[in-house]
Amino acid sequence: MFLSSILHNKTMKAGIIGATGYAGAELVRLLSGHPKVDNLILSSVSFEGGKMAEVYPNFLDISAKNGKTDGALLKADEVIASADVVFSALPHAVGEGFAQACMNKKTHYIDLSADFRFDDDEETYRKWYGKPYQFKELHNSSVYGLPELNRQRIKKLASSESAIIACPGCYPTGALLGAFPALAKGLVSSENTLIVNSITGISGGGREPSRSFHYPECADSVTPYKVASHRHTPEIARTMSKMAAFAGESAPPLIFTPHLAPLNRGILSTIYIPLVPEWRVTKEIEAKTAEIRELYIDFYKDEPFVRMLPAGLTAATNRVRQSNFCDISVHVDINGSILIVTSAIDNMVKGAAGQAVQNMNLLFGFEETLGLEAIPALF
Amino acid sequence: MFLSSILHNKTMKAGIIGATGYAGAELVRLLSGHPKVDNLILSSVSFEGGKMAEVYPNFLDISAKNGKTDGALLKADEVIASADVVFSALPHAVGEGFAQACMNKKTHYIDLSADFRFDDDEETYRKWYGKPYQFKELHNSSVYGLPELNRQRIKKLASSESAIIACPGCYPTGALLGAFPALAKGLVSSENTLIVNSITGISGGGREPSRSFHYPECADSVTPYKVASHRHTPEIARTMSKMAAFAGESAPPLIFTPHLAPLNRGILSTIYIPLVPEWRVTKEIEAKTAEIRELYIDFYKDEPFVRMLPAGLTAATNRVRQSNFCDISVHVDINGSILIVTSAIDNMVKGAAGQAVQNMNLLFGFEETLGLEAIPALF
Amino acid sequence: MFLSSILHNKTMKAGIIGATGYAGAELVRLLSGHPKVDNLILSSVSFEGGKMAEVYPNFLDISAKNGKTDGALLKADEVIASADVVFSALPHAVGEGFAQACMNKKTHYIDLSADFRFDDDEETYRKWYGKPYQFKELHNSSVYGLPELNRQRIKKLASSESAIIACPGCYPTGALLGAFPALAKGLVSSENTLIVNSITGISGGGREPSRSFHYPECADSVTPYKVASHRHTPEIARTMSKMAAFAGESAPPLIFTPHLAPLNRGILSTIYIPLVPEWRVTKEIEAKTAEIRELYIDFYKDEPFVRMLPAGLTAATNRVRQSNFCDISVHVDINGSILIVTSAIDNMVKGAAGQAVQNMNLLFGFEETLGLEAIPALF
Amino acid sequence: MFLSSILHNKTMKAGIIGATGYAGAELVRLLSGHPKVDNLILSSVSFEGGKMAEVYPNFLDISAKNGKTDGALLKADEVIASADVVFSALPHAVGEGFAQACMNKKTHYIDLSADFRFDDDEETYRKWYGKPYQFKELHNSSVYGLPELNRQRIKKLASSESAIIACPGCYPTGALLGAFPALAKGLVSSENTLIVNSITGISGGGREPSRSFHYPECADSVTPYKVASHRHTPEIARTMSKMAAFAGESAPPLIFTPHLAPLNRGILSTIYIPLVPEWRVTKEIEAKTAEIRELYIDFYKDEPFVRMLPAGLTAATNRVRQSNFCDISVHVDINGSILIVTSAIDNMVKGAAGQAVQNMNLLFGFEETLGLEAIPALF
Repeated sequence: MFLSSILHNKTMKAGIIGATGYAGAELVRLLSGHPKVDNLILSSVSFEGGKMAEVYPNFLDISAKNGKTDGALLKADEVIASADVVFSALPHAVGEGFAQACMNKKTHYIDLSADFRFDDDEETYRKWYGKPYQFKELHNSSVYGLPELNRQRIKKLASSESAIIACPGCYPTGALLGAFPALAKGLVSSENTLIVNSITGISGGGREPSRSFHYPECADSVTPYKVASHRHTPEIARTMSKMAAFAGESAPPLIFTPHLAPLNRGILSTIYIPLVPEWRVTKEIEAKTAEIRELYIDFYKDEPFVRMLPAGLTAATNRVRQSNFCDISVHVDINGSILIVTSAIDNMVKGAAGQAVQNMNLLFGFEETLGLEAIPALF
Repeated sequence: MFLSSILHNKTMKAGIIGATGYAGAELVRLLSGHPKVDNLILSSVSFEGGKMAEVYPNFLDISAKNGKTDGALLKADEVIASADVVFSALPHAVGEGFAQACMNKKTHYIDLSADFRFDDDEETYRKWYGKPYQFKELHNSSVYGLPELNRQRIKKLASSESAIIACPGCYPTGALLGAFPALAKGLVSSENTLIVNSITGISGGGREPSRSFHYPECADSVTPYKVASHRHTPEIARTMSKMAAFAGESAPPLIFTPHLAPLNRGILSTIYIPLVPEWRVTKEIEAKTAEIRELYIDFYKDEPFVRMLPAGLTAATNRVRQSNFCDISVHVDINGSILIVTSAIDNMVKGAAGQAVQNMNLLFGFEETLGLEAIPALF
Repeated sequence: MFLSSILHNKTMKAGIIGATGYAGAELVRLLSGHPKVDNLILSSVSFEGGKMAEVYPNFLDISAKNGKTDGALLKADEVIASADVVFSALPHAVGEGFAQACMNKKTHYIDLSADFRFDDDEETYRKWYGKPYQFKELHNSSVYGLPELNRQRIKKLASSESAIIACPGCYPTGALLGAFPALAKGLVSSENTLIVNSITGISGGGREPSRSFHYPECADSVTPYKVASHRHTPEIARTMSKMAAFAGESAPPLIFTPHLAPLNRGILSTIYIPLVPEWRVTKEIEAKTAEIRELYIDFYKDEPFVRMLPAGLTAATNRVRQSNFCDISVHVDINGSILIVTSAIDNMVKGAAGQAVQNMNLLFGFEETLGLEAIPALF
Repeated sequence: MFLSSILHNKTMKAGIIGATGYAGAELVRLLSGHPKVDNLILSSVSFEGGKMAEVYPNFLDISAKNGKTDGALLKADEVIASADVVFSALPHAVGEGFAQACMNKKTHYIDLSADFRFDDDEETYRKWYGKPYQFKELHNSSVYGLPELNRQRIKKLASSESAIIACPGCYPTGALLGAFPALAKGLVSSENTLIVNSITGISGGGREPSRSFHYPECADSVTPYKVASHRHTPEIARTMSKMAAFAGESAPPLIFTPHLAPLNRGILSTIYIPLVPEWRVTKEIEAKTAEIRELYIDFYKDEPFVRMLPAGLTAATNRVRQSNFCDISVHVDINGSILIVTSAIDNMVKGAAGQAVQNMNLLFGFEETLGLEAIPALF
């Protein structure tokens, strides 16, 4: 695809492989309102030959009305054949072939699965996802699509003929944004464990019905799951290492514990970050907290999607609902040795489809916030 | 205000009186994304002098970023003084003075309260809302802002110097759209009672905390309220009469029963419409149902916000979430004498702020769907 | 089984076939606290050979501790072989053989399915449930187990060697109790349609995961389903006929519309009952309402599980949570021609397992409220 | 009161001061089913002179039917004058006078507030609760009513003329039971911070309506609150010190972070416990986990209300709903240095009213589980 022609024409065709999963449907929703996309081409294995509105009646009429898509669900190959950019919202470990096809055709591939998040570290991927890489060489050039970390690398890809962006997992996004300034500025002791305690809404479990997500079994209740064994753990750990490297440090050992709560959307992460001795305090904790808050504010001052909350507020998932924001608050524990950060994102937006669009914007030289300006709906 | 200048300039200042109630905040949310509005001026009695984001932290940063407002909460008079159009999201019976001020200043006034919904029928208003009209003459020229009923009258107001639009109540909107084709086409017997059974989300009760809307008292439960005594009853009844008049008929007696369910948003109305003898059937009910469905489809074929659901689907509030759509399905009871219509709207959008924006679009000659194109989020 | 020995011994063995469905598990919960049951014998096709606590970890330890069961899941035949009474909590149309086996063994059979609710009216059963009767003669002697209607018939069965009780459906229970006094006292016009508009919690859909009951698809939303086609319709209609017969009247045509709301438990029914001319009023509706309320209070004055709400209250599902109560309020519409009754039950208790236990109590001559005394938990 | 007469008569009068708050109402619910209580005497400041069922219509009829109370709401003095045991479910810092009155009258006082949880450590109480002790000497003899820790001390009080039991806070109960075996067996390093991350249902905020607990503001969302500043922190810390003393150790520094999730009931605590070097592992983490699980199982083997979950399960609040159980699971993090314990309780039962009843049972020599046998309702 010729980038210049897109910039000239101002519009493009976006393809979505796996459009009928929750992340795929969220991409359809967001891209339907994106001013640079004038054509949406969708595929679905489960519903091939059908229409999007048959699977999700909330899409009724709209596809037709916004003129971008008739909602037809094609084959993945057809999507790749005609799209200027391909979003892949497939489950893990089934999409590498499509990535290869996109590379062959010189089309950017923005992947929402875990397949390209581990670069050349196939061993870790295989250990946690149970499969080897299918096309090893593809993993050398893919970029981890957390714009707050890799914006320049992503932008640079714009000049390449085709690129693979590995969008971060939902939990890693919230956890990493919460810890990034502390890690990059050398506040974090690598001697003690850093703990990410997250609570997610049930859309995170996907669209497939199961006992765990059957309404009477999960409504009005909360439970941790995959304690000390969730596969977002290595993704968070390796990226934290890269973040700590900004300060010439190692990242500390990591514990990640996800919890399920009766919400539709959202991830709230409470992050316990061990401070290096020089940042520990035994008194005047408020002053120290304010200092760290300023450091965070400064660190994120140019970020369009990170909101440092005013003192006195903590992150809440309903304040970022359906937006690409990550809200962050910082606190220091009463013993002065641990920084407590809370972060909130919408798992379907900043944790999935929104971040993918943000990456597309960077990749094509659009305004980074394009199509992502919606104000969070409190409810 | 000179309409031509707005059409020329393409942009305008919109004012919102009562911006910190739920309907007001929803107006801020919707108008922030409206391409013809480049300035939002807000007022609040409760939070005058404060900022929108102090009341609703979900608005943090955004006001500044979209450039339309800094979120400052002024006095109502200041809003009226500088706005090109004024939305009033006040409680009932306190806004007439502001309407008068707008008329004096030749500014359109779009009212979300019940104050102007009864035209010159002050008696009914006084009976159900407990107060007499303050400025009687204003009520002669106001228009009931249900575009599907009064589109031409609303558009015609565009040529007047200033107008008052009385946006319908949330329940009436869903109920009236569900019954309109049947009434206008002469299907409805005026001999038997028409029943509107509605279920609403809790945002309908407003932002003020109370025992009834305290989470542990209303979560995981459902209850009817104000049985046979809700004040949307006369509004529904009088508008149904106007609808029936299209067919030269009277409207039947009305029962309206609202229920509270643990949702944030949405109104689901199940409407039991007695059929006139010639439309009753004792067999081939499916064929009769299909015939009525076609009649509804035809009636609404040019409406941008009414979606007739495919056969087999019933209305669901999550399929219209945060959109201006009204979804409708039709059914005939097994005894053949009653048409059962289900309709779903988002009470905050088509039931309040969205419909107000739709009215603004009509009033200013904009595309009717402008700023209201968001696809419903299933969750 | 010799009744006298049970009354003498004071305790009995209760068997539950289909113990791992929601209704079965609720029976286990209730019977575990029943003072006359000292032994619970369970079966499950899906989990045969397993333990109850493996399926429902909320049962951990308790089975052992209350000494009534070790939670072992046997075969249905084993349950029948050793139980003094058999509860069947199977899906429809699979249990008749077990009923026959119980009759052969002279054991009472209390059925929670629809199989025996239609007496000798096989045609209706076949039409709505899609199967013919398997053992026709069994249907001649079974009794519809709504104690408020059939208490004497049920008690009389105590002297028979073995009996079949067909527990009413969940929706019929709430609807019928709400309409009974009006029907039995001759208030109801058979000329006009009686409408039952019900809202249920999602446990009513059973334990099997499906798209409709997948949390993100049903939380925060409400929708009607099976409009004009739910198979509880004929059950309500035929029982209303019997109720109307007390007044020498026919029952009116019936419409029944169920709705799904995001609750775990509970059914709220709003019942629109057309009044006969002599009960219609055009004024003094409050006085008329009070008169009908008194009539209802008198009608139910000896019922242990029906609570007529004080004037000013309407039924709410959270006020009957986990109890065997049915709460009822009465209202007259402002036009005076329709009686509006609201009723609330817990679909799992009075709508299923609790009513089954109530029937057992009657059948064995126990105090009717035994094991059903728990106070409703508001939340 | 003469204990022997109660044991002889088998029944007693229980008084509840503050009966109309959520904890008070839960006491009414539980004690209504308690076989040793035949009389309930209630008081309420807010509703004095009224009836319980006017405040909570779910109590309609029942008071009368179970014969224990007519639900009349008296003055606190009247309750103290006639009760054999007084439960105080008042807010913090208003009940000491009633405790003194009970001591004067030789009546046991079981307090659900924080007033007596700090023994003679008035300084800590004053720091966190903002008031000095009113009757200092009372605090010397009160006992912290966590039966799993202080059973013998509580039982011993039975022989005293009158006693004060300070029931633990809801969060402390779940946190302390989760950490107790590790602390008492010397597994816990006092060098590193122990973190308690808890998620609670909204009933924990009490019955008073407020913005934070207004349905649309807290439904479908999750947020931490009072990060590093909740006043249950010192209660947890001081009791952990006592628990560590069993092993001759000090307790580690503590961080406690509560979160609010859209549940009615329940507290889920995820507890990160730093292990002493000899318990750390770098491999064979599963074996180490199993070893610690056995240690926990052994530690709690005689506890009627602590359930160690089978391997593979984590605690979930819906599995302890409305029961006095505390469910616990243990895990070791993949780095081997931190024990992760999850615990779940019902905040209204084991976290408040149920534990109070458990204390009453111990105090009066009843079976400890009396009146607390209800099986958890999954929903």
